[in-house]
Formats: sequence, C-alpha cells, structure tokens
Amino acid sequence: MGSINLSDKLAHIVEHWSPKTVATVNDYDVRLAKVKGEFVRHTHADSDEFFLVLDGRLTIRLDDGEVVLNPGEVYVVPRGAHHQPFAEEETSILLFEPNEIINTGDAGGALTARREEI
Amino acid sequence: MGSINLSDKLAHIVEHWSPKTVATVNDYDVRLAKVKGEFVRHTHADSDEFFLVLDGRLTIRLDDGEVVLNPGEVYVVPRGAHHQPFAEEETSILLFEPNEIINTGDAGGALTARREEI
Repeated sequence: MGSINLSDKLAHIVEHWSPKTVATVNDYDVRLAKVKGEFVRHTHADSDEFFLVLDGRLTIRLDDGEVVLNPGEVYVVPRGAHHQPFAEEETSILLFEPNEIINTGDAGGALTARREEI
Repeated sequence: MGSINLSDKLAHIVEHWSPKTVATVNDYDVRLAKVKGEFVRHTHADSDEFFLVLDGRLTIRLDDGEVVLNPGEVYVVPRGAHHQPFAEEETSILLFEPNEIINTGDAGGALTARREEI
C-alpha cells in the first residue's frame, strides 16, 4: 500500500530550491527539497512554514537573528516573517505548508517553483 | 532562537499513545508520540492524518490491508478510513494534523489524550 520512503523520493530530486510534493494532508502539502547556497529573502504573509532538516544543515536568516537546523531539528517560520534559507553544503529538508504556498513568497523571481508532485 | 530538536522532545515523553504538540503551523499541530502495542481502531471523519516514523516500526492496519512504516517512511491515512496503529517494539512517530483532532477519533475510550504542548 501507499507508504512513502523519504530517501527514495529524495533520490529523484536533482534541482536545488525546487520543492516537490510527496504527500497531502487535507489542503496542506508535505514537500521535500534539496537546497544549497543562498535562497531569496521572502515572506509568506498568510501562513506559517514548517522546516525539518533530514540531512545536512540549514540556516534560516531572520530579521533579528538566525536559526541553524541540523538533522532532526525543526523550525516554524511565523507568517509574515522575512526569512532567507541558506545551506553551505547540500541539505535535504521536509516542508509542511498549505498547498497554495509558493517557495519564493512575496519575492518572486527566477527561483520560483511551480507546485509539482512526485 | 526557537529551533526544536525532535530527539530532545522525545526524551520528555514517557507515556505511550499520548501525542504531544511540539510545534504549530497555522491551525495544524506537529505532534510527537511514543507508541507500543495495539491502539484502538478508529477514524477521523473530517481529516487526513500524517504519520512519519522516526524510530522503530509502525504497522497501520486498514480495512483492506496494512502499511508497515520503518524510520523515514510516511503514510497519510485518508479521512474516514478506519485505522489501527500497532507497534511490536517502542516506536517514535511524528504526526501532522489539525489541532482539533483527538487521537482516538470516533472511538473515544480510555486511550483518549487531551491536547498538550511540550
């Protein structure tokens, strides 16, 4: 039956900063992404955003400091908070957020990814 | 700042089948639980329920079969589906679900846990 192995799903992800939806919970998406380098600073005005690091290390730069997440660590960016994710080495993350949320929030630009299920 | 280490949170959980809320995402809870043995068969009529196994092994018995989850594996029980979680050995799980969801769903009974944040 339909269990989902996160490592198997991650193996299909090549592009950085392009989250893929691996499951849905009502109108929320569970997304996986591989990230490396610096993402665009942005906000989601109407939604919190959940980050769980699966592998690697993620820094989330906020207006008043930063949060560093190692594997097994979680941070929820509050709605409206500017945040800029950064990873020195390739890092795998799990996101949980409403399915209409786009990765670049209010910033838009070249890194904007369309919603895609894998 | 407020990062959450899932292992540290799990270290504070003793009771089986009693999920604790460790973060919120809008009106959804991120919950951790330790489970062992057989839970009550139940449904959540109005919500899907997300399970991620962090440690151990979880079997989710459904009306038409069962799903076995090892660490790093996910299953979303669809709304309205009868399910009975079972773990032969102590198993740690992460749940995503709306904050009004109670663990025993329509079944109620002695294993019903009240919402508690840790």
